[in-house]
Amino acid sequence: MKAFFLGTGAGVPAKLRNVTSIALKLLEERGAIWLFDCGEATQHQILHTSIKPRRIEKVFITHLHGDHLYGLPGFLSSRSFQGGTSPVTVYGPKGLKDYINISLTISQTYLKYPLKIVEIEEGIIFEDDQFTVEAKLLEHGIPSYGYRVVEKNLPGTLMADKLIADGIKPGPIFKRIKAGEAVTLDDGTVIDPARYVGPDQKGRIVTILGDTRICQAAINLAQQADLLIHEATFASGEEEMAYEYFHSTTTQAAEVANQADVHQLCLTHISSRYEPSHWPTLEEEACTLFPRTVIAEDFKEIEVLRR
Amino acid sequence: MKAFFLGTGAGVPAKLRNVTSIALKLLEERGAIWLFDCGEATQHQILHTSIKPRRIEKVFITHLHGDHLYGLPGFLSSRSFQGGTSPVTVYGPKGLKDYINISLTISQTYLKYPLKIVEIEEGIIFEDDQFTVEAKLLEHGIPSYGYRVVEKNLPGTLMADKLIADGIKPGPIFKRIKAGEAVTLDDGTVIDPARYVGPDQKGRIVTILGDTRICQAAINLAQQADLLIHEATFASGEEEMAYEYFHSTTTQAAEVANQADVHQLCLTHISSRYEPSHWPTLEEEACTLFPRTVIAEDFKEIEVLRR
Ligand SMILES: [Zn+2]
Ligand SMILES: [Zn+2]
Repeated sequence: MKAFFLGTGAGVPAKLRNVTSIALKLLEERGAIWLFDCGEATQHQILHTSIKPRRIEKVFITHLHGDHLYGLPGFLSSRSFQGGTSPVTVYGPKGLKDYINISLTISQTYLKYPLKIVEIEEGIIFEDDQFTVEAKLLEHGIPSYGYRVVEKNLPGTLMADKLIADGIKPGPIFKRIKAGEAVTLDDGTVIDPARYVGPDQKGRIVTILGDTRICQAAINLAQQADLLIHEATFASGEEEMAYEYFHSTTTQAAEVANQADVHQLCLTHISSRYEPSHWPTLEEEACTLFPRTVIAEDFKEIEVLRR
Repeated sequence: MKAFFLGTGAGVPAKLRNVTSIALKLLEERGAIWLFDCGEATQHQILHTSIKPRRIEKVFITHLHGDHLYGLPGFLSSRSFQGGTSPVTVYGPKGLKDYINISLTISQTYLKYPLKIVEIEEGIIFEDDQFTVEAKLLEHGIPSYGYRVVEKNLPGTLMADKLIADGIKPGPIFKRIKAGEAVTLDDGTVIDPARYVGPDQKGRIVTILGDTRICQAAINLAQQADLLIHEATFASGEEEMAYEYFHSTTTQAAEVANQADVHQLCLTHISSRYEPSHWPTLEEEACTLFPRTVIAEDFKEIEVLRR
């Protein structure tokens, strides 16, 4: 599980920071990639990475501001043109369906894969046997969602050596024991799986927020997250401006990380007013309050390790 | 007057050729730039040039395929964000208004400049004292227009030395003579402007076509043009495929240039199937039939000189 930054700027594209898009790579987990936001030229950024558009299975749009959205019709079209045939689901606020439909209809784009558009409300918006995704409204000028991606716990490691030592021969039975089944042997012995399977591997939590002021919903979504990706449009000290424009400062992002007791914080959506030479300062501002902070850059990747 | 290529690829963006956009720089003529098509990431391409978005006065969309259109909402928004306040007019096929309006409305984008959207039909779509622009439908899968930009003739040079030699003193009177007025002097002499003003400077003609099969409308629009910008999605020999997909080959573009008796031909909308090493061959294919041909590349500029 890796978070890969395709665009980390705010409002308008700049040479070194494109408008927002984040890829959550779940290649080992499910052979898939999930995209969070799709600002203009996200597909262009992808051209410079190893990401294959056909691997992108879901797109979560946080809010409908252009710098988070305008790359979506182009991405969806090109994915089809480049041979993507597996389904895609796009989640986002009300209005998303009209926007996608008119963009594809007017250009007479016919996708070669099934496209599902889900206009979401707060709550669990997706669940399968691997993941749940929860959405909550943040505090922005327009409805802006944060997403909490929770990986389900995995069964612990099978102690194969111990099974063999106890005279149980390897075979399909091992898989059943690992799955937690109390298997009965030919001689009537019942195997207690708890004795042969280590503790559950804790699933990871990644929280990715749309544009927002510092707010309680962000803290709730980020509880105990292994990685929190929080916007930090402005530097510490600019809290008034951040409030006025419905954004956050570096310090406010760190405060959320602190209160939510997360493992790691990543700052993104950095205003183009800050030159590259100032980026380390932005990171330090947050580190003062929350030391495990990194500032995002386009094409940076953060691995989310199991704890 | 210069044609500057912001995107010269076909269908999907590639590393070296972005999707279509061409800037017609009329900086000396009217302090303005006109954009022809606005594929995704046109504003990103502009970031790497000296073009100022606030200078862009008009945008002409040839057709509503995404690779010619999807950069428009982002461009219009950023132009406002970056302080553009002068009006913009966008011309294009029916459907354009809905697309722009929903893209701006859904993202709650409020432009700080007046935006006018003109859904065109064939004919003269713009005229002022400097230029006329004529549109004609070409032959593509969806309505695709070609644009013929005609600069009006300029009055000839004033022969100031000759006026002075004839005893006429420099002053506001010179301007009136240059404008073609038969000025009466205090002594009753009438000055014949024709004697003191050189021949009209012939206005230039630039023809920029949307995606098309080889067709008569293209030849008509390109008559005697100083510069014809014609798509050449495919190489010579691929005429069947070009016909099937409503595109042209290098040779067909050259044929149009020949029949329209243009001064210079520029090939663009080059399929990404052709590697950079093959680009000179594409140019040569056209040159065989029409020697004054160049192949466009992203960030290439062609000056349109007076003849
Ligand atoms: Zn926003
Ligand atoms: Zn087209």
